[in-house]
Amino acid sequence: MSPGAVEQYVVGVDFGTLSGRALVARVSDGTEMASAETRYAHGVLDTVLPASGRRLPPEWALQVPADYIEVLRTAVPSAMRRAGVDPASVIGIATDFTACTMVPTFADGTPLCEDERFTGDPHAYVKLWKHHAAQEQADRINALAAARQEPWLSRYGGLISSEWEFAKGLQLLEEAPAVYAAMDRWVEAADWIVWQLTGTYVRNACSAGYKGIRQNGAYPDETFLAALNPLFEGFVRDKLDQPIGELGAPAGRLTARAAQWTGLPEGIVVAVGNIDAHVSAAAAQGVEPGRLVAIMGTSTCHVLNGDTLTEVPGICGVVDGGIVTGLPGYEAGQSGVGDIFGWFTSQQVPAAYLEAAEAEGISVHEHLTRLAAEQRAGAHGLVALDWWSGNRSVLVDHGLSGLVLGMGLNTRPEDLYRALLEATAFGTRVIIEAFAEAGVPVREFIATGGLVKNELLMQIYSDVLNMPLSTVLSGQGPALGSAIHAAVAAGAYADVPIAAKAMGGRRIGAYRPIAANVASYERLFAVYRELHDHFGRGGSDVMRRLKAIRRETTA
Amino acid sequence: MSPGAVEQYVVGVDFGTLSGRALVARVSDGTEMASAETRYAHGVLDTVLPASGRRLPPEWALQVPADYIEVLRTAVPSAMRRAGVDPASVIGIATDFTACTMVPTFADGTPLCEDERFTGDPHAYVKLWKHHAAQEQADRINALAAARQEPWLSRYGGLISSEWEFAKGLQLLEEAPAVYAAMDRWVEAADWIVWQLTGTYVRNACSAGYKGIRQNGAYPDETFLAALNPLFEGFVRDKLDQPIGELGAPAGRLTARAAQWTGLPEGIVVAVGNIDAHVSAAAAQGVEPGRLVAIMGTSTCHVLNGDTLTEVPGICGVVDGGIVTGLPGYEAGQSGVGDIFGWFTSQQVPAAYLEAAEAEGISVHEHLTRLAAEQRAGAHGLVALDWWSGNRSVLVDHGLSGLVLGMGLNTRPEDLYRALLEATAFGTRVIIEAFAEAGVPVREFIATGGLVKNELLMQIYSDVLNMPLSTVLSGQGPALGSAIHAAVAAGAYADVPIAAKAMGGRRIGAYRPIAANVASYERLFAVYRELHDHFGRGGSDVMRRLKAIRRETTA
Repeated sequence: MSPGAVEQYVVGVDFGTLSGRALVARVSDGTEMASAETRYAHGVLDTVLPASGRRLPPEWALQVPADYIEVLRTAVPSAMRRAGVDPASVIGIATDFTACTMVPTFADGTPLCEDERFTGDPHAYVKLWKHHAAQEQADRINALAAARQEPWLSRYGGLISSEWEFAKGLQLLEEAPAVYAAMDRWVEAADWIVWQLTGTYVRNACSAGYKGIRQNGAYPDETFLAALNPLFEGFVRDKLDQPIGELGAPAGRLTARAAQWTGLPEGIVVAVGNIDAHVSAAAAQGVEPGRLVAIMGTSTCHVLNGDTLTEVPGICGVVDGGIVTGLPGYEAGQSGVGDIFGWFTSQQVPAAYLEAAEAEGISVHEHLTRLAAEQRAGAHGLVALDWWSGNRSVLVDHGLSGLVLGMGLNTRPEDLYRALLEATAFGTRVIIEAFAEAGVPVREFIATGGLVKNELLMQIYSDVLNMPLSTVLSGQGPALGSAIHAAVAAGAYADVPIAAKAMGGRRIGAYRPIAANVASYERLFAVYRELHDHFGRGGSDVMRRLKAIRRETTA
Repeated sequence: MSPGAVEQYVVGVDFGTLSGRALVARVSDGTEMASAETRYAHGVLDTVLPASGRRLPPEWALQVPADYIEVLRTAVPSAMRRAGVDPASVIGIATDFTACTMVPTFADGTPLCEDERFTGDPHAYVKLWKHHAAQEQADRINALAAARQEPWLSRYGGLISSEWEFAKGLQLLEEAPAVYAAMDRWVEAADWIVWQLTGTYVRNACSAGYKGIRQNGAYPDETFLAALNPLFEGFVRDKLDQPIGELGAPAGRLTARAAQWTGLPEGIVVAVGNIDAHVSAAAAQGVEPGRLVAIMGTSTCHVLNGDTLTEVPGICGVVDGGIVTGLPGYEAGQSGVGDIFGWFTSQQVPAAYLEAAEAEGISVHEHLTRLAAEQRAGAHGLVALDWWSGNRSVLVDHGLSGLVLGMGLNTRPEDLYRALLEATAFGTRVIIEAFAEAGVPVREFIATGGLVKNELLMQIYSDVLNMPLSTVLSGQGPALGSAIHAAVAAGAYADVPIAAKAMGGRRIGAYRPIAANVASYERLFAVYRELHDHFGRGGSDVMRRLKAIRRETTA
């Protein structure tokens, strides 16, 4: 910047699965001044609804919207304090959110669960992305769309996920018709939070495209909806449709109320909402066509801009302008990654490992990783299928489940842990191969998200994919990505790619494949691929059968 | 017994893997007067040979014969003291042993390892049943027998185990020719201990049949042996063959030296040796045709007398008179049962479970069992294949390995523990169905061994098998089984079945199938069966491939 000019700042707020994180970044070069995190008081509701004590069925995952507001009230001011930045120098704020995470609201944006008539009903709460109880509805949507040869279906790899707006909406209608009737708007949390900041409901192009089946400006038509369920005919018109905002555009200006929550100046620009994964691409300088950005956390989301719009079987979606305006954005994903590692450390690790980790002053994850790193690829004799939360790409089937194969009496926790790390890398390879086969080449793999700090995991990915692996420089990709969008919305840069070049950053080729490992992983991947196709592509339906037995037994 | 008559007693001694246990039992009704246990001072030598400090290769497992004598010197007198029984009222003693456990001796029965020329050589020691370093020899025996269509092969389900006399003998010849040359006799420990008690070497019909490939009075012939290795031609003639003693017959009389060791009267009857699993059938009243006795411990051994001798694909062996004289005795097995549960508790259970168990003053197994019992069959959504140690029956394939399928993020340790309990029950059902299909019906299932105390496990077996389950009354089945054989050898009963009726005991129908569970397990078993056949019968060879990758990677 020119001498004497005053530095400007933006705030990015990333709403994750368990917490929200606010980041204050310098507009000129993306320097991260400070950040702060607020955990959601209610976390994820997946066993019981506190308000009523009602037990939740398996596969449910709810959240409480007030927890999101608390992030604005605490994390933003705290980050600002730590940054020591004058609020007057903040020119904009942007947010990103997990998706598809849906809030049922009244016309003014008030969540239904905040109304005492509905506070005891689970359906009045936020349905988190990993709420997987709408599979039956998703199955019907897919069967009907396939039968009617709906043109939009192939844009989603041929399958609509149970996680998305229509499946969750149909579940709401069919299981809680009164709640559905009372609901005026069915809002992505990504847009709901912007609504809270600006007082205006703008629907972002990214969520609408990837999660809301909006293609070429239109949604599935009313005859389709009525065929699903006559009462669902007006779903788009009555509950969903809303003016679209492009990514990086301003959605509105900060209200007095939101200024009070955040301590930021009233009237600054608030950017259109976005999805956490997609916004990360900017932070990782991954918006050029051919650069796949993997946002690796509890789950992994892959975003990739292409040169041309084509249809890739089994990917989550392709949306024109879904990542940056003007390019076809592809999204794929793995429903469980860090979640599976977390499950393992909490459910499967003996006391001695905890004690050893404590004695070393490291986390159980770090301890297991160190032990797992001592062995050569293939030495544990295990292969796992990373389907603890089902499979998002390329099978798009939440009726699938986890598998570990090869155990003997000498199998140790670090062996199983490593097998789980590897399974997620194999899952990523299946996705990259699907892109390549469809003519969408991946020329660079950029890892972002919380798991980037695990060096063994990164090396395994590089070895399994047999390609160099770049890593994002920022420790908080989504929040920085949002900050970049805030800067664009506030007019500091012409567009997101230009802002990403200035404010984002990546370490090119941070990991490189090791030949001996590559050879072993070729063989292990062949085993993974065989199991993947056997259990995932019709060779055996035992996973779905076990889920059915489970549902009937626990009903 | 008639008034005024003096009670008579017998002593049974059970030589296990880690200790020997002596039991004093009343002849008239089998009442257990007292018992005592002596742990082997050297335990299992599987890492280093103490005499020379020499490291043992993987898969080796040796023992020291003097440890067995110590059991006679300490456990027997101690049990007698506790029983308060006059030694003069003891009319016989019998022993049972792990098998196939082999002692290389000189012509007088002295173990080679007790000669200072050989004391530093691992091959001069006892090769314990779980010495698994003769797999290469077993593979050659099987390949040659199959190629030559040896008639005895089908008596062993088509495969000879690396644990047995011929594989271990061939290993000895090929790896330590000098020890082999110096060895006059290759003796089952079950017979060696009787030799020590009586001064006479009698080979028992059970070991000779199940572990020594003796069928219809003959062994594999010399052309077969010479084809394996020219120097092995005389193996049977020079090292192995010996007059056979039928089970329950006297082998000889207690020598003065053995009387001094045990404190028992010189000249009392000593029964022919036996195998621990097989002798248990008498204690459980399981010697009538159609009663299957499952000896459930770290592994499970199934013994079953049939009405007629037939060949059952995939079972361990059928031997005429192998369990009781005059009936065809069938043996099947599961290589891993309690071992797998033990693996799980040591490798897969979080600290909180240990703490909860400790707080309740119960074992981790008991704690997990309590938690697992709270759910309904099928509620966890899991199925496992119980192949952590490979599969002994009916696949006879140690290239197989463990599998668990169906995990989700809400899968808990008690769910996995229960799935492992169930997997072993499914494995048992496969065996029982194989018997039935071959025309050897199982009319009653009797559980014995250490796992009988787990009530949930017993109920699961009853539900999975959909039949009532009887349990042995005695807490020390093998030692009581030996005591019964001692009583028969001493002439107190006409034969083992009659003695078993008087001295053994079982709780008939201790567990009965619960209809709701049976229905769920029918569906889960169908899943198990599908996975069993897919991975075990050629649908997929991934388990063997992973073991190959593992061997090459760790080589």
